[in-house]
Amino acid sequence: MSTRLTYHGAASYEIVTPTHTILVDPFLSGNPLAPCGPDDLRPPDLILVSHAAADHYGDAAVVARRSGAAVVCDSAVRAKLIDDGVDPRRITQTTWGIVVGVAGLTIRPVECHHWSMATLSDGSTVVGNPLAFVFETEPGVRIYHYGDTCIFDMRLIGELYRPTVGLLGCTVPRELLHLIDGPGTYLSGEMDPDEAARAAEMLGLELAVACHYLTPNEDVARFLELVARHDTSGKRRAVAPLVGQTLVVEPGNHWIEG
Amino acid sequence: MSTRLTYHGAASYEIVTPTHTILVDPFLSGNPLAPCGPDDLRPPDLILVSHAAADHYGDAAVVARRSGAAVVCDSAVRAKLIDDGVDPRRITQTTWGIVVGVAGLTIRPVECHHWSMATLSDGSTVVGNPLAFVFETEPGVRIYHYGDTCIFDMRLIGELYRPTVGLLGCTVPRELLHLIDGPGTYLSGEMDPDEAARAAEMLGLELAVACHYLTPNEDVARFLELVARHDTSGKRRAVAPLVGQTLVVEPGNHWIEG
Amino acid sequence: MSTRLTYHGAASYEIVTPTHTILVDPFLSGNPLAPCGPDDLRPPDLILVSHAAADHYGDAAVVARRSGAAVVCDSAVRAKLIDDGVDPRRITQTTWGIVVGVAGLTIRPVECHHWSMATLSDGSTVVGNPLAFVFETEPGVRIYHYGDTCIFDMRLIGELYRPTVGLLGCTVPRELLHLIDGPGTYLSGEMDPDEAARAAEMLGLELAVACHYLTPNEDVARFLELVARHDTSGKRRAVAPLVGQTLVVEPGNHWIEG
Repeated sequence: MSTRLTYHGAASYEIVTPTHTILVDPFLSGNPLAPCGPDDLRPPDLILVSHAAADHYGDAAVVARRSGAAVVCDSAVRAKLIDDGVDPRRITQTTWGIVVGVAGLTIRPVECHHWSMATLSDGSTVVGNPLAFVFETEPGVRIYHYGDTCIFDMRLIGELYRPTVGLLGCTVPRELLHLIDGPGTYLSGEMDPDEAARAAEMLGLELAVACHYLTPNEDVARFLELVARHDTSGKRRAVAPLVGQTLVVEPGNHWIEG
Repeated sequence: MSTRLTYHGAASYEIVTPTHTILVDPFLSGNPLAPCGPDDLRPPDLILVSHAAADHYGDAAVVARRSGAAVVCDSAVRAKLIDDGVDPRRITQTTWGIVVGVAGLTIRPVECHHWSMATLSDGSTVVGNPLAFVFETEPGVRIYHYGDTCIFDMRLIGELYRPTVGLLGCTVPRELLHLIDGPGTYLSGEMDPDEAARAAEMLGLELAVACHYLTPNEDVARFLELVARHDTSGKRRAVAPLVGQTLVVEPGNHWIEG
Repeated sequence: MSTRLTYHGAASYEIVTPTHTILVDPFLSGNPLAPCGPDDLRPPDLILVSHAAADHYGDAAVVARRSGAAVVCDSAVRAKLIDDGVDPRRITQTTWGIVVGVAGLTIRPVECHHWSMATLSDGSTVVGNPLAFVFETEPGVRIYHYGDTCIFDMRLIGELYRPTVGLLGCTVPRELLHLIDGPGTYLSGEMDPDEAARAAEMLGLELAVACHYLTPNEDVARFLELVARHDTSGKRRAVAPLVGQTLVVEPGNHWIEG
C-alpha cells in the first residue's frame, strides 16, 4: 500500500490513499503553474479547505459542484461555498478539535494560527477560524497539512496525533506576489525555512515536505538543509516536490514520481 | 460554606456561591433534556456567556431581559444580546486577560481556542473572540469554565490562576448532532476524553468535571478513567453530574445532590 | 547611534531610528493626555497599527493621508483605513509570520492573542487578526511591541527573534475607562503587572518598558518591581516613561529625556 500526493503548487494536493481521493486546498485556475485544471482532476471523495484565502480556497466550489464531493471546512469557507452554489448538504463545517467522519475517512482539524476571511457576492465579509488537518491515509501514514499557520508550539499536536508526514509552508509563492497590494514586499511566508524546520521537529515528523511555493526557491533549499539541523530523531527526511510531481509515501519510505 | 453547581447539560450551569448566583452558558429552551425552562431559574446576579454558538448563548437574552442581570461576554455575544433586546448598560464586554469586577464578583476571561460568531436579525454576522473563565466562588474554590476550547498548552493558566475545579468538555452532545448540517459525523467534541484529562493535568485541578453532554456517554466514562491516568498530583478527583443534578463543592471536598 | 521612543500614552510611540521614523498605534486625538496632535508629528516613514481598537488605530488614517506614509496592518485595520480615505496603495496588509519589507525597514508581525474589529461607515463590521511586531531599529536594538496581547507562552518569540526592548502592556488607561459600556469595571489590562513581567522573561528582554497607561499608576509601579523578580538573566532593566517623555535606547543602555 502507498499514499500518493500530487503537488499542484501553493498548498494544493491531490492525495490518493489506498481507498480514497482527497483534495486539499485546490488552487488550480488562479495558479500560473497548475499542472491541470479543476475539470481534469479525478472526482475526489473529499475536499478539505483550510481557510478562505484565494490561494487555498481556489477551485473548491467548482470541484465540489461538479463532483458532489463532501467538503470539510470552517464557517467562512462554508459561507463562501454556499455563495458559490455548493449544496450545503455536501459541506461539513467543523472547528479545532472536532474530529469528523466523512466519506469513510476520519479528519482531525487542529489549530492553525492564521486567519480565514471571505468576501461574498453581496460584498459582505465572513470570518471563520482557519484549520490545519491531521488524517491517516493508511496504517502508519498520518498526514499533517499546515493550512498556512505561523509557527507556534506544536509539540502537543505532535505528541497527541503523531503525524508522520507534514506538509509545511516554508516560503511564499513568488509568482503570486504581484497580487499583493501596497508598498511592502513579503519577505517570507507565514513560516520561514527555519520555522518550518522547527515545526517538523515539534511535530515529530518522519518526512517533512516543503510547501507553499510554485517554483522551488532558495527558501525551499534552505528548508531542506535546516530540517536535518533541527532533527533530534536522527532520521527525519525532507523533500520538496516540483509542481506536477507525485510524492509517494509508505510507512518509513518515500519517493517522487513524475 | 459551599458552592453549588447545578448542571443543565451542554456547558450550562447555575452556580450558587455563598453570596451570588452565576449563570453560565444558559442553554435551556433548545435543550431537549433541560431540567427547567429559563423562566424557572432564580434570577442570577451575573450571566457569563463564553461565545455566541447557539448551545452556549442559549437563553442568555431571555434571562438577561427578565432578570436585569449583568452579562459578561465577548463582542459577538454583546452584539447578539443587543439585537435580542438586552439593554447595553447591562452588558460588559471583555476579552482575554481583562479581569472585570461586576455585581460584586471578579471574573477573569482566559484564552479559549475556539470561535465566536452570531448571525443577527438583519442577516449580518458578527465575530468576536471566545472566552473561557476563571473565578473564585469562595476561598479555595476557583472555577475554570472551558467555554468550548480545544486543547492547547494550558499550563500557564494553571500556574497563574490556579483553578481548583474545572468544567471541561470531553464529548459532544449526541442529542444535538442532528442539527449539524452536512455529510459528516462529529466523532468528538472540541476536546476528547484524553485531551480533557490532559487539560485537567495542565490546569492542576483538584476536581475535574465532565462537561458538554446531555446524557453521559462512553466518552464521559472514558474521561473519568483518564483523569487519574494523567494525574501527577495523585489526588485529582473526577465527576460527571447528570443533567439536573447539583455538584456541591467545598475546598477539598465535593458531592452530588439530586 | 541610538533609537528614540517618544511615548504618547496607551500603546502609541514615535520611534526614531538612526534612519527612519516609525509611528506605532498613534492614539492622539482621543487621548486626553496626548503630548501633541496628529498634525504636530514629523511625517513618519512607516505607520504600524496592531489592531483596529480605537485606542490603537487612533489617528492612523489622519497621519497616513497627510504624510503618505506606508502602513503595515491586518485586514480589519486595512478596511478601516480605506473607509477613512487612505489610498490602498499605501497599505500593506500582513499576518502572523509574514515578514514585510517596506520603506527600507523589515517588520515582523508575530502572534498577538487579542482581537481586531472595526465598524465601517456603512455600519458593517470587519474582523482581522491582531498583530504584535518585532523590528530591528539598529544593530543590537530589536523592539517588540505587544499590540494588546494577553499573556501566552512567548518563549518561541523570544528564542527565534530575540527582542531586546519590549513595550509591554501591564495595566489599562484609567482615564479612558469611562468609555467602556456596561455594569462592570476593568480591573486589569490584557496583561497585569505580573503577567507582563513574566512576558519580559519569556521574551528574554534586556529592557522591559511599561505600556498601556496615560498616567503611571500602581500597576506600573508593581510591574517595575516584578520585572526583577521574574528575571533569570540578572540584568533585565525596567522603565516606565511618562507620556511625552522620550526613551533613548542603545545596545546595552537606555535613558529618559524630557
